[in-house]
Amino acid sequence: MTANIYFTGGPEAWARYKLPLLEALASAGIEAELTNECPDPAAVDYLVFLPGTVSDFTPFTRAKAVLSLWAGVETITGNATLTQPLARLVDESLAEGMTDYVTGHVLRHHLGIDRFLTATDWVKVVPPLARDRKVTVLGLGQLGTTCAAALAGLGFDVAGWSRRPKQIDGIACLSGEDGLAEALARAEILVLLLPRTPETESILNAETIAQMPEGAVVINPGRGALIDDEALLSALDAGHLGHATLDTFRVEPLPADHPFWRHPRVTVTPHIAAETRPATASKVIAENVRRAEAGEPLLYLVDRGAGY
Amino acid sequence: MTANIYFTGGPEAWARYKLPLLEALASAGIEAELTNECPDPAAVDYLVFLPGTVSDFTPFTRAKAVLSLWAGVETITGNATLTQPLARLVDESLAEGMTDYVTGHVLRHHLGIDRFLTATDWVKVVPPLARDRKVTVLGLGQLGTTCAAALAGLGFDVAGWSRRPKQIDGIACLSGEDGLAEALARAEILVLLLPRTPETESILNAETIAQMPEGAVVINPGRGALIDDEALLSALDAGHLGHATLDTFRVEPLPADHPFWRHPRVTVTPHIAAETRPATASKVIAENVRRAEAGEPLLYLVDRGAGY
Repeated sequence: MTANIYFTGGPEAWARYKLPLLEALASAGIEAELTNECPDPAAVDYLVFLPGTVSDFTPFTRAKAVLSLWAGVETITGNATLTQPLARLVDESLAEGMTDYVTGHVLRHHLGIDRFLTATDWVKVVPPLARDRKVTVLGLGQLGTTCAAALAGLGFDVAGWSRRPKQIDGIACLSGEDGLAEALARAEILVLLLPRTPETESILNAETIAQMPEGAVVINPGRGALIDDEALLSALDAGHLGHATLDTFRVEPLPADHPFWRHPRVTVTPHIAAETRPATASKVIAENVRRAEAGEPLLYLVDRGAGY
Repeated sequence: MTANIYFTGGPEAWARYKLPLLEALASAGIEAELTNECPDPAAVDYLVFLPGTVSDFTPFTRAKAVLSLWAGVETITGNATLTQPLARLVDESLAEGMTDYVTGHVLRHHLGIDRFLTATDWVKVVPPLARDRKVTVLGLGQLGTTCAAALAGLGFDVAGWSRRPKQIDGIACLSGEDGLAEALARAEILVLLLPRTPETESILNAETIAQMPEGAVVINPGRGALIDDEALLSALDAGHLGHATLDTFRVEPLPADHPFWRHPRVTVTPHIAAETRPATASKVIAENVRRAEAGEPLLYLVDRGAGY
């Protein structure tokens, strides 16, 4: 039986994904009709979904699953018309790229590298050892856990925080409200890798920033909505925070007139920390189609109650 | 019996080391007379040595060992008056600091971080994954091996080169002349961690730089003399090399008028990659005094023939 698979993305995404998806489906032994057009929603077996495309899932009466090409699914978890199983994309290479980004920027701030890019004087500013540097990772999902482990592997003194209690070797795991205060109070460098949910919206705000130590650095490759931008800018202007390196924003691309662009204590990167690579992402999609066809549980099924 | 220990460094070093050394000696159970003055060289049992101090070791007729506070001993290995056993300093925290520096600057160049520190436009420049980035470490002594392992742990495709053949898990180990050509030809990022010997003097010169791939980056936290400065500058000017991040120089502090300071493709750091920390260094010195007193072999004894 042929599976009808509808790729919801626009022409640019289609051009990048068509071949890798066909190859991955063939490798997984799936006989598939892959299309970027949808004359008959009722005939679709699977949606390969990109945000900002389909908003009404009602006509897809036969669809067995909606397979997101993004890790973040916050734009559709609240969509009442989406009754089909929803799977996020968890891509091994995505965790690898994120680990590169997080370890690279943590080390950059740890070592105070920026100073030396423009310095023209011989001044020995010696950083502490990694073991004497406290880093906190907010969010211990797959990406947060992988990054926290990589930082611990480099010798950093790492704590992680998550809503629900967790246990991870080598990481001081904190949770809940009290745990958050403790996680923030120790964070010389804070990495935000939480999902976007109603609970995490503006989790970094004037009140929580005030709990962080003087001169602390914020790195946000998670979600733009985790931060109250005005509160962050105020804390940077006041010198309470030393720097913010931001990869995700409430509006993307970040508007040209946004103060982040030219703030001396802000580094903007254009949402590249965990850029999905089509080849590896397509393998995850194909594996989930195979599982669904075989009646096996989907990988990375979204818990709609929790919102991720 | 009391061991007479002569600290050869100047007042600044003495102020930093006196207490840590006394503490470490006491912890090692050594009864010691530690002094920064030397009225009678013939009464000295051990020299705790800093470069640029003692140059004639002949009067130290009773000395059982010269214990260097530096890892680099090239300034005295050729000294004919030095007949006593010479030990280098290999300090665990030194390897840790070096690993922080090397992983930090490799990731900085891998991710192309510099661009984003001044960018004011949303341009998605996505680096390859670490697994697709070839890094070569020249020198597989303790520091080189530790750094190569840390880079491999981050996922980089790491090769190492040493004069003599070595085998290290997870590192493609190359050696000899042919191995050097192969090590250079693959080096998108080249890390120099060789000791300074007659064989390594200007090992990076016009000829060897030409063997490196277009746009390659050089990181030198090893020894300034490993590089032919003029050849490096020429290759940077010509665009054959993309960048050089240098921590060690032929003359230190690097003179204010040296072209490295203001070259757009050079980052200067002031010999901080492996700054020795007095507390940990003193433990190594005390352990070697204990070993010598007990008739046990010294740690990190210098092979005078090899020069390190």
